[in-house]
Amino acid sequence: MDADGAILREARRATPGSQPREVERVIAELVDELSGDHRIASVGIGAAGWMDLEGGTVLFSPHLAWRNEPLRNNLERLLRRRVLLTNDADAAAWAEWRFGAGRAEPRLVCITLGTGIGGAMVLGGRLERGRYGVAGEFGHQIIMPGGHRCECGNRGCWEQYASGNALGREARELARANSPVAQEIIKAVDGDLDAITGAVVTDLARRGDPTSRELLEDVGEWLGLGLANLAAALDPGTFVVGGGLCDAGDLLLDPARRAFARNLTGRGFRPAASIHRAQLGPQAGLIGAADLSRVNARGNGWVR
Amino acid sequence: MDADGAILREARRATPGSQPREVERVIAELVDELSGDHRIASVGIGAAGWMDLEGGTVLFSPHLAWRNEPLRNNLERLLRRRVLLTNDADAAAWAEWRFGAGRAEPRLVCITLGTGIGGAMVLGGRLERGRYGVAGEFGHQIIMPGGHRCECGNRGCWEQYASGNALGREARELARANSPVAQEIIKAVDGDLDAITGAVVTDLARRGDPTSRELLEDVGEWLGLGLANLAAALDPGTFVVGGGLCDAGDLLLDPARRAFARNLTGRGFRPAASIHRAQLGPQAGLIGAADLSRVNARGNGWVR
Repeated sequence: MDADGAILREARRATPGSQPREVERVIAELVDELSGDHRIASVGIGAAGWMDLEGGTVLFSPHLAWRNEPLRNNLERLLRRRVLLTNDADAAAWAEWRFGAGRAEPRLVCITLGTGIGGAMVLGGRLERGRYGVAGEFGHQIIMPGGHRCECGNRGCWEQYASGNALGREARELARANSPVAQEIIKAVDGDLDAITGAVVTDLARRGDPTSRELLEDVGEWLGLGLANLAAALDPGTFVVGGGLCDAGDLLLDPARRAFARNLTGRGFRPAASIHRAQLGPQAGLIGAADLSRVNARGNGWVR
Repeated sequence: MDADGAILREARRATPGSQPREVERVIAELVDELSGDHRIASVGIGAAGWMDLEGGTVLFSPHLAWRNEPLRNNLERLLRRRVLLTNDADAAAWAEWRFGAGRAEPRLVCITLGTGIGGAMVLGGRLERGRYGVAGEFGHQIIMPGGHRCECGNRGCWEQYASGNALGREARELARANSPVAQEIIKAVDGDLDAITGAVVTDLARRGDPTSRELLEDVGEWLGLGLANLAAALDPGTFVVGGGLCDAGDLLLDPARRAFARNLTGRGFRPAASIHRAQLGPQAGLIGAADLSRVNARGNGWVR
């Protein structure tokens, strides 16, 4: 990536199993491959996991075997280059703040709606990562005590109500009830109800299926309620909402905006945040990680 | 107040009605009275209300007639001194960060439990006030959609479950059910059930009434759940909990700590914030406002 956020070259590999050494080896191969035509000043890693505050260690990753893994040192040894290690949601938020829908917003909150909810904040031009580096887990605010079980071990987390997974679960439940209103959804998966996902529902909604639109509306309302909670606490100027579920566009975001306006505490006596769709799509994470590594290598340390 | 947070002289007045001009006049009288023995460099005002980000205007106050009131200018004209205007919860948090239970904590979240829940954050040595100055309304995160009605106009706000008012409401409900377990509470108010308040219950709990202790435990559990939500979002190092309800001490905070530990997302894979009782009591607000005005007058502007 260049200094303006333009991607110069891109390469992809599937994650090779979950062993840390293997993953490091493939990352090194990728950097080698990409360094063919360009001088690479620094390398940024945006990964799904909790990083320590200094950005050296992956404390925990839900999908890989990283547990207190000193990933940055390992990679710097392999790559002989400066490496910046960051959380993928932080990286995406940084990208939207630098080049996307949250450009220059002094108080930005980003939400990524995928299987769950990722979150990050850029406050006063800095990623706010909390005391130990694990801030931004907005998806795990409990908004329904005793509600749906969450992978995190709790019940009633926001992401169980406002995410792609939530949309899929609601649609499957409707289809299993064999409701007449669910027939389009059942048809779309040829009766294989386990194949109903949030993406299936989103696609049907865009093609006009009224039931799928209702389901998206329900998810949008939960989204808006949770954003109102975040606005009560954080008072951002802008929310940027990205992730796969945003393919639904305003079918999701309009109900979210209405629910946000209805549930915002102090409405009428305060300015309200605007809610924008992310601009950089699935590339936000890599753009943010690369830009953070560049900023960091220049010595304008982003880590406080 | 001197530079070390020590109060040199104190004076009090009841708020004279709700008219802005009257309130300003009484403030000016107080400053005159206090300036007898000391040279006053600057004046800090900590008030219940939303201030704009520049600290010049009270946007809205729940208990006074301030609506877009240019209070700072009005007072500076009257007092011929620099005035700093801030929210009372922000002032209290600043005091606890400078001189109290959150001293030098890099990521501090303060909660004041009174009739409702006040809140404020000191992040990286600065009050984080949000984009428009109204951050920190933690008490209005909705944790029970469709739950108890809140004065803010919503239902299910945290402060309807974890506050002095919530404690009083639960105790009154129990007493009205004329439950045998409520007899100590009923006796304490001579049968006048409307006189049951959070303070009555706290007092009984400290004297050993098991039912009052149960009620405090219930409120403590809601407190811990909401703190876990804030930790998911903000990842502070320390929570400082103050306000009148904290007279209950560990009868409230121990259940809160247990519920916090039980509901913290990612528990076991992350360091957890500690929960401390505030140290400065009801004077936190005045200490914080005075200190902020001093820091501000020195030109180390606290407003970003």
